[in-house]
Amino acid sequence: MGDHVTEVYLDHAAATPVAPEVMEEMAPYFSQRFFNPSAPYSVARAANADLEHARARVAAVLATRADNVTFTAGATEANNLAFAAVGGHVVCAAIEHHSVLACAEARDATLVGVSGAGLVDPVDVSRAITPRTELVSVSLANGEVGAIQPLRAIARVVAAERSRRLEAGERRPLLLHTDASQAAGYVSLNTSTLGADLITVSAAKMYGPKQVGVLWHADGVALRPLVLGGGQEGGVRSGTQNVAGAVGMACALELAERLRTGEVRRLRALSDRMRRQLVEAVPDVVLSGPKKASSRLPGLVHASFAGVEARRLIVLLERRGVYVGTGSACAASKMRVSHVLVAMGVPQEVATGSLRITMGRSTTEADVDYATEAIVESVRTERERRRA
Amino acid sequence: MGDHVTEVYLDHAAATPVAPEVMEEMAPYFSQRFFNPSAPYSVARAANADLEHARARVAAVLATRADNVTFTAGATEANNLAFAAVGGHVVCAAIEHHSVLACAEARDATLVGVSGAGLVDPVDVSRAITPRTELVSVSLANGEVGAIQPLRAIARVVAAERSRRLEAGERRPLLLHTDASQAAGYVSLNTSTLGADLITVSAAKMYGPKQVGVLWHADGVALRPLVLGGGQEGGVRSGTQNVAGAVGMACALELAERLRTGEVRRLRALSDRMRRQLVEAVPDVVLSGPKKASSRLPGLVHASFAGVEARRLIVLLERRGVYVGTGSACAASKMRVSHVLVAMGVPQEVATGSLRITMGRSTTEADVDYATEAIVESVRTERERRRA
Repeated sequence: MGDHVTEVYLDHAAATPVAPEVMEEMAPYFSQRFFNPSAPYSVARAANADLEHARARVAAVLATRADNVTFTAGATEANNLAFAAVGGHVVCAAIEHHSVLACAEARDATLVGVSGAGLVDPVDVSRAITPRTELVSVSLANGEVGAIQPLRAIARVVAAERSRRLEAGERRPLLLHTDASQAAGYVSLNTSTLGADLITVSAAKMYGPKQVGVLWHADGVALRPLVLGGGQEGGVRSGTQNVAGAVGMACALELAERLRTGEVRRLRALSDRMRRQLVEAVPDVVLSGPKKASSRLPGLVHASFAGVEARRLIVLLERRGVYVGTGSACAASKMRVSHVLVAMGVPQEVATGSLRITMGRSTTEADVDYATEAIVESVRTERERRRA
Repeated sequence: MGDHVTEVYLDHAAATPVAPEVMEEMAPYFSQRFFNPSAPYSVARAANADLEHARARVAAVLATRADNVTFTAGATEANNLAFAAVGGHVVCAAIEHHSVLACAEARDATLVGVSGAGLVDPVDVSRAITPRTELVSVSLANGEVGAIQPLRAIARVVAAERSRRLEAGERRPLLLHTDASQAAGYVSLNTSTLGADLITVSAAKMYGPKQVGVLWHADGVALRPLVLGGGQEGGVRSGTQNVAGAVGMACALELAERLRTGEVRRLRALSDRMRRQLVEAVPDVVLSGPKKASSRLPGLVHASFAGVEARRLIVLLERRGVYVGTGSACAASKMRVSHVLVAMGVPQEVATGSLRITMGRSTTEADVDYATEAIVESVRTERERRRA
């Protein structure tokens, strides 16, 4: 990654490398099976069959039918497509990804607050739903503090309002969307147990290619295109289909599902190790996110150091070859205080010194020890500098 | 490509393989330099610098500034973004790509007809422009019959209307958009000589990756996003940027520009060779598109055989390992009569027997001879079958 002897990448929530298995499956579609899947001759029909096979593979992991899987150019586009499916009022959590919040802000929306741990209370969702609400959007897991949301309970709230409307003879639809980009690989994406009507998955966050995503929709949900043209993807996403990307998504999703149980256990141990070491070395560190392991992304540590600026830490850490995030990458580039921490009620002087550390498949105990020591020393250096 | 001894791919207008040079440049961004270009640490900033360098490389080929180049998830999205920049009446050619026609149909639009050779007459564009027109969209070259449009003359028509509005104190903008997806690699994309305000380029049609495109915009043109989120690409195209794709686009565009003069000459000779052979063997073949070499894509032969169905020819040809198109791939999959041929006034019985043959970098004289013989024999077989 550079000139450092030791390099430790701990920002897997921002980007993951393409897994070797995924790259190997994708490779032939760039130069040999490059054919346009809409073309009429045999080799192009074979490319189309590979595309549809990739769709079926994605569907199998989601325990759904292939017809309900739309390939998109990334999770942001998938989130936008989910919002485009409805017209009325929407409810979403105040800590959603920028792509969800931007869609919400573009229409009549109610933002639901979260607990100090970053958890959405289904009761709050219930209160925010009005007779005009058409969409509830709550991410399956938040990528900044790692809170895994009680989606099934939220689905029950949505189902209750649907029942009420049915009995009242009200015809307005109400859909539940969840952005599972950060949860994929750590939480089951079985569509029937999740209880959502629309699910976003990102290949880029689970060792697949960038600018490739999936929007799953339940039977009976009509998607509306944002981009018009040749009518690919059932008319929802026009443009020559990216067979390499779809195959990469399928392979990445299968691999993530296969490794899931083991990785959850392994990463939970690694992040616990880092938390223990941080608390020991910097007793006033603030560790955010849910306390309960099952409500928390296993490889994520959110650590705040009062009186220190995160961007200074980033610089000190990169000198030691340690790469960590400060929040979602799009917001981080602007170095503003995270809207997630604001919603959680984290005081500004704590929030500004926050690191979002996300481990991944390649992370080892040695990486954790090296990175933790680097973080601790950087915090000390920075606190000494400010005292001087 | 399959089990054939000889295989000849002649559908380069539908898809091109990723060039080895392009693949080599893209490869590191999948597994090593995979970082999120919006993340704050050094290696991610380096990925962002590579992205911006790719933008500058694209800009250099277009003879423009990098700020005017937006990376998109393909040409269809770029065309949709071009249309999203304006609100009022639009004028486009009746033979445009489906993505342009679909955008036009979604609003108040006037379609301009074409000559029997597929050429747009600037006088017709002038007549179609009303005081409410905000966009004129004419592709630089048509991908089905290969007509290179008189874009500079159309730009003069647009400029004249702008002058009229300026003098009349009318403030409504009027922009000229051109989809250069099929022209790239064969026609100069120098933005100052083309005279357009918005230009679409596709990586997938010029030996770059699929689902990667560029929309160029002139100074003063304000693009409006179709997809909202983290604000990447100047807020026009949110979503984690595909650095591999952008680098692939830059490399593909530079390569296409470097090879352009030689390839135009080489492919012109090859397509002339095929035309001569076809006319000799099947005297009633109808060759469509402009007669003048400079008004025609160099590697494209559009040949119609009356009384024969193209889809039957496709099957006979694929058995011999020859892969050709019948029109734009998205339409071809539906096997309907091409809207391009309808607009050109080609009689239905001729149109249904049309092959769109597009040569590319790997095409040789031997390929042309083999494919032409296969086409001629397939036409004979099919005509004999129908007579029997």
